[in-house]
Amino acid sequence: MNEQERKRVYEQAKDWILDAGAHIRNVIDEPLYIDTKSNPNDLVTQMDRDTERFFADKINQHYPEHHLFSEEGFGEELDSLQGTVWIVDPIDGTMNFVHQKKHFAISIGIYFDGVGEIGLIYNVMEDELYHAIRGKGAYKNDKKLPQLEPELSLEKSILILNGFWACENNRINERKVQALIKKVRGTRSYGSAALEFAYVAEGIADAYLTMKLAPWDYAAGVILVEEVGGITTQANGKTLDLLSNSTILSCNQTIQEQLVNDYIELKE
Amino acid sequence: MNEQERKRVYEQAKDWILDAGAHIRNVIDEPLYIDTKSNPNDLVTQMDRDTERFFADKINQHYPEHHLFSEEGFGEELDSLQGTVWIVDPIDGTMNFVHQKKHFAISIGIYFDGVGEIGLIYNVMEDELYHAIRGKGAYKNDKKLPQLEPELSLEKSILILNGFWACENNRINERKVQALIKKVRGTRSYGSAALEFAYVAEGIADAYLTMKLAPWDYAAGVILVEEVGGITTQANGKTLDLLSNSTILSCNQTIQEQLVNDYIELKE
Repeated sequence: MNEQERKRVYEQAKDWILDAGAHIRNVIDEPLYIDTKSNPNDLVTQMDRDTERFFADKINQHYPEHHLFSEEGFGEELDSLQGTVWIVDPIDGTMNFVHQKKHFAISIGIYFDGVGEIGLIYNVMEDELYHAIRGKGAYKNDKKLPQLEPELSLEKSILILNGFWACENNRINERKVQALIKKVRGTRSYGSAALEFAYVAEGIADAYLTMKLAPWDYAAGVILVEEVGGITTQANGKTLDLLSNSTILSCNQTIQEQLVNDYIELKE
Repeated sequence: MNEQERKRVYEQAKDWILDAGAHIRNVIDEPLYIDTKSNPNDLVTQMDRDTERFFADKINQHYPEHHLFSEEGFGEELDSLQGTVWIVDPIDGTMNFVHQKKHFAISIGIYFDGVGEIGLIYNVMEDELYHAIRGKGAYKNDKKLPQLEPELSLEKSILILNGFWACENNRINERKVQALIKKVRGTRSYGSAALEFAYVAEGIADAYLTMKLAPWDYAAGVILVEEVGGITTQANGKTLDLLSNSTILSCNQTIQEQLVNDYIELKE
């Protein structure tokens, strides 16, 4: 993807995400049609589907050679990241969307031959767009986000972690998670993976640890976090595979090794 | 406190809290002066002190017969709630204030002879004022908040709970907390008790459980939650003592008994 093409796609994607968000704000108080997917807490609404279809139609019209990989089924089943791939979560944080009518986001990561080129996370109700082009820094609306704090201790860190992972579970050693919760300055949990990545990129949290995300949950986030000098890996520190569900650790590099070595022990 | 007096104090308190918040927004990007209090994670800033002094001066000038009970020491050591008492947290969520420059609130509860008459919680950076007069309903800015959902199951509830209480601790049986986390639809943690009460009052969370709050953390919240039909008690269901630090359960009444009986076991 050359520079001119990348810039054009970026501007286009920004326009579309802002349009989609404006539409959601306009209809936010209308009644919702809610389904559940794999379990009663895995909600999906007509709004998820309509928003994804909006992007599918736009991409198909303007960039018929691009691919779409997305949550609600309007994209393709992808088994490679060759070419240009839009990885889209139309509403990230659907439980917040349903229960709170805020604290949710649209997330778009655009990859070229497997490399993250463009990342967009739109906090719809706050009208805050986090956006980045690879190598050019990350922004929140018009403000460039600073590089993450180069000196940081775990004791002074804010960790985004759902309390669920401190409970007995089959993915991570909960005892070590509990020790981590006691080690850090504080923990938070917001219920939208995309926003949680955005908060790490913004430096208002220092790490985000979770045990199961789909590519559309993290595709944009990893690009934003990288642009401010942070790092995103599987929770055990291994490289992410962008085609698979994954554990995630996204954080300030300064504390990554300590997190991985001393506090994160995955169950295989 | 007669109706006219109550209305006057309410309007006055609203003006002051909005003024104090506007000032904080104006200086939010200036450097912070941070101390720690009882432990390294118990932060206090000059902004906490300045904001509290602002309220202390205003109350003293306009209502010299009123009492102030507050976090940073400009009020009195109170041992009774006779007369009119302002219970003020100048910045609730100081860790968020320091690390995030958002997600904090000013909290004011005004009590007359021990009865909560006026509650105000101001989400400063979002410019969202939650406010209530006893018996007249609760509002978010100009919008009246509806009564809480009369039919609600724990399985469909959002619980605000810090993951810390799922870890071994000396206040609550963490095994039962872990069972609760698995029972509810989702948990969240925002780092400001006042905002967490406001979210319960708004119906965007269904319960807030925590093990240690001071009166200024909850004085306003209990009034707001009561005005939408919710209930606030100690975590074991017993009546709150507004002069003491306390465990807290603030929730939709529909799920309170089940929470108290099946999931909350305090260690004495």
